[in-house]
Amino acid sequence: MTASHALGEIVAALAAQQRGAPAAELVGDAELRITRIGPLDGADSSTLSFLSNPRYRSQLAQTAAACVIVAPALADEAAARGAIIRCDDPYLYFAHLTQWWARQARPSFVTGIHPSAVVDPSADIDPAAAVGPLAVIEAGAVVAAGASIGAHCFIGADARIGESTRLAARVTVATGCSIGARGIVHSGAVIGADGFGFAPARDGHWEKIEQLGAVRIGDDVEIGANTCIDRGALDDTVIGDGVKLDNLVQIGHNVIVGAHCAMAGCVGVAGSAVIGAHCSIGGGAIVLGHLQLAEHVVISAATVVTRSIKQPGLYSGVFPIDDNASWEKNAATLRQLHGLRDRLRALEQRARPAQDEQQP
Amino acid sequence: MTASHALGEIVAALAAQQRGAPAAELVGDAELRITRIGPLDGADSSTLSFLSNPRYRSQLAQTAAACVIVAPALADEAAARGAIIRCDDPYLYFAHLTQWWARQARPSFVTGIHPSAVVDPSADIDPAAAVGPLAVIEAGAVVAAGASIGAHCFIGADARIGESTRLAARVTVATGCSIGARGIVHSGAVIGADGFGFAPARDGHWEKIEQLGAVRIGDDVEIGANTCIDRGALDDTVIGDGVKLDNLVQIGHNVIVGAHCAMAGCVGVAGSAVIGAHCSIGGGAIVLGHLQLAEHVVISAATVVTRSIKQPGLYSGVFPIDDNASWEKNAATLRQLHGLRDRLRALEQRARPAQDEQQP
Amino acid sequence: MTASHALGEIVAALAAQQRGAPAAELVGDAELRITRIGPLDGADSSTLSFLSNPRYRSQLAQTAAACVIVAPALADEAAARGAIIRCDDPYLYFAHLTQWWARQARPSFVTGIHPSAVVDPSADIDPAAAVGPLAVIEAGAVVAAGASIGAHCFIGADARIGESTRLAARVTVATGCSIGARGIVHSGAVIGADGFGFAPARDGHWEKIEQLGAVRIGDDVEIGANTCIDRGALDDTVIGDGVKLDNLVQIGHNVIVGAHCAMAGCVGVAGSAVIGAHCSIGGGAIVLGHLQLAEHVVISAATVVTRSIKQPGLYSGVFPIDDNASWEKNAATLRQLHGLRDRLRALEQRARPAQDEQQP
Repeated sequence: MTASHALGEIVAALAAQQRGAPAAELVGDAELRITRIGPLDGADSSTLSFLSNPRYRSQLAQTAAACVIVAPALADEAAARGAIIRCDDPYLYFAHLTQWWARQARPSFVTGIHPSAVVDPSADIDPAAAVGPLAVIEAGAVVAAGASIGAHCFIGADARIGESTRLAARVTVATGCSIGARGIVHSGAVIGADGFGFAPARDGHWEKIEQLGAVRIGDDVEIGANTCIDRGALDDTVIGDGVKLDNLVQIGHNVIVGAHCAMAGCVGVAGSAVIGAHCSIGGGAIVLGHLQLAEHVVISAATVVTRSIKQPGLYSGVFPIDDNASWEKNAATLRQLHGLRDRLRALEQRARPAQDEQQP
Repeated sequence: MTASHALGEIVAALAAQQRGAPAAELVGDAELRITRIGPLDGADSSTLSFLSNPRYRSQLAQTAAACVIVAPALADEAAARGAIIRCDDPYLYFAHLTQWWARQARPSFVTGIHPSAVVDPSADIDPAAAVGPLAVIEAGAVVAAGASIGAHCFIGADARIGESTRLAARVTVATGCSIGARGIVHSGAVIGADGFGFAPARDGHWEKIEQLGAVRIGDDVEIGANTCIDRGALDDTVIGDGVKLDNLVQIGHNVIVGAHCAMAGCVGVAGSAVIGAHCSIGGGAIVLGHLQLAEHVVISAATVVTRSIKQPGLYSGVFPIDDNASWEKNAATLRQLHGLRDRLRALEQRARPAQDEQQP
Repeated sequence: MTASHALGEIVAALAAQQRGAPAAELVGDAELRITRIGPLDGADSSTLSFLSNPRYRSQLAQTAAACVIVAPALADEAAARGAIIRCDDPYLYFAHLTQWWARQARPSFVTGIHPSAVVDPSADIDPAAAVGPLAVIEAGAVVAAGASIGAHCFIGADARIGESTRLAARVTVATGCSIGARGIVHSGAVIGADGFGFAPARDGHWEKIEQLGAVRIGDDVEIGANTCIDRGALDDTVIGDGVKLDNLVQIGHNVIVGAHCAMAGCVGVAGSAVIGAHCSIGGGAIVLGHLQLAEHVVISAATVVTRSIKQPGLYSGVFPIDDNASWEKNAATLRQLHGLRDRLRALEQRARPAQDEQQP
């Protein structure tokens, strides 16, 4: 399904979008045929490419791309070699471009309920929604217009899927959980499994605390493959509007994730943590339970957040990688570090009186 | 499905349970209507709440809760503001309460095999078990009385699901694996995929070691969403009675997890580790292969267990989080730590003779 | 399904294999009946066992095994107690043995499409392939001879499954992704979900970058349960021949994994990382995005790779585990480490002139 579009057509289409791309100007031949969007490196004469990171500026001279999306500062340099789309925010423009391109390339949407789906008669499915093969939809569930439920999905009783939200194949949305509008949930994600709550009994066994809350997810949320968001113990777990979660992320019960947070793969957030809006959490980071993060906090990959963070900023805590022999020596010494500090103090104290004595 | 129960009814029902809640006494109006169980904070006049952690004692004065479950030490203070349930272990009582509440709120169980399920005629399914829509059950599998197999589950040949065990939607239990009684397995869990075993061949490729063992899971075990427990290479992987595993946990082949262990989300346990009974492992921790942990060992979140642990106790190993600039400086210095120790020693040795010389 | 084979039959069968086991010689009674392959520890008189790690040599004297596979150096010692299979590489021989054993023990393969599967008429499924119950196969997908698609699998449009590749139950292979020959994909794996790509918009929301690439997986690749491999943003994500990925691994978009790499459970590799052939990555390790690893790099478990690695070798970076009180003291001191270094320098500078002054 190779597409081919004239450059002028592309620029005009993006200018006409409702949630529009940044303003842009085409400088060059509007009739050029574009068959592919691609990086500068490896582009051919029908590739539309972009340059947003000045680090890759040196690739401009070598690229064979038909056209390059660039910021005004690099426009002259880029125009010297061929067509350009000049634009204040090339990366954002590129994002909109990929969206438009995908809409052209993908097959049109088939609405209705696949005959192999198992749908409870009390479920309320909008005729302009799609339910894929072998999906299961339980009693009282609501699927809004334009939503799409993929193959093998399970939508529990009284769950709600918002307008134009797409669930890939093999997604679970458990009883009573809800997802807002325009969401995307990738394959294998589990929304609304029980939170991890147990009370210790005197004989050492764990007594289950039934998880009576649910999960409420806002609008424009994307949830990665095999990511899990647990239902709340008493109140709900809440994911704000515009949140983006990567794959294999774990969100514990009663966590509150503020709007427009982004979490990369393999992040774990323990129960009852409250994360402010616009936070970014790097891959593999762990946030302990009951902590609070202010807005605009950025956590480096693989960092363990062991205390609340009240100020925006970048926070890190990762053991530096080294060749194994060096690591072994430093790690062994680290286990004596507090003692080393005491020895240093003792030396300092010894040095001071000695110096004092030398004073006349 | 809003429930409403008289306070006296609730206390009587919990007293009558078979695996009973702790003894408790209601002080206050038995006719009060309860519609919700909830935290002190946010409770209204029909909320039944609890106070188990003395840290939250200050919330007692402000809460609007209809009734509070408290320990004897706080009973007078709590009774001054309204009804109480006095009880030696409020948290455990609360756990039993959530169980009773969930039983009232949830629809009653439908037994039998859903017509859309694909069940091998040789499978042995008790008439008092439930098999959900589109489940697949292979030859020789056994499903005991009161067990429930969710939608889209896959139960492999000769697998066994014990009495009253519930599998949520989209669970895999592979060939020959078994789960005991009263278990709960959440959506997306995979029991019995192949362990990760390969022999290096001379040309650099990996030769597969077929995993000939299975997984044996005890009674009263709960397994989180998208958690994986691998089958053994030769012998079985074994999960003891009462073990609780959170979401996205990885248990390698031939691991033995002792009874009543609890592991939080994203824990990884490598092959052939042996973990004693009553251990707790914090979220994101990693346990290396072939290690042994004694009983009652507690591992902090995100800690890497690189050696066997023979004594009960709390063990940790996490790089402390800091603002990024401080972390960078400390991490860079950490890579020279062994050298710093040597320099400190040199100073100490120099200091000692100097001092000796000063002696008369 | 207890198997029983004569020792001589087993040795002859392995010698006759096409992708053959190492040359081996049976010393002992070829008529001995073998019913089980097992470790030395726990072996009985019908167990075939092996000794590859000299650490377990002391178990030789105690074992009741019928026969032990050993290297020439230990052959005499092992033969003194019973039958042996002498072989240059006992572990590799053992791997081949498990494969042969599994082929005897497992039921024979049923080809064809299960009547409950939902298969698009345009899909191209070889008659010598098997499609399990309730699998969904979309338009244009290709399934080669000898391939097996498990129950509840989802194969997206135009995806390709190579010859003799086996997908366990509940696997997703999304639109346009391909897997080579002789692969194994375990339950819950997701091949081809969207990569995690968003451009920040001025109002703080994230604008989706549609992921227009796919995933291309080579021959002889094994992919663990609930592992995720994301599709590329523009170009494809590529997994080389012979790669082995354990469970719950995350591979970001546009990652290139070289041939014969092995990654243990819970590893995360961020977008656009390029990993050379024959690398091994320990469980729970994180590789940051856009990095390059040379061939034959070995990363210890739970290590965070924050920079490119150009030389083969073993690399580590893990905070050492300790009793919690010791860890707390050392971790607190670690946050002052850079300051300690400065204080040490100051002492050294003070010590030097003092010494100089003592010079005559």
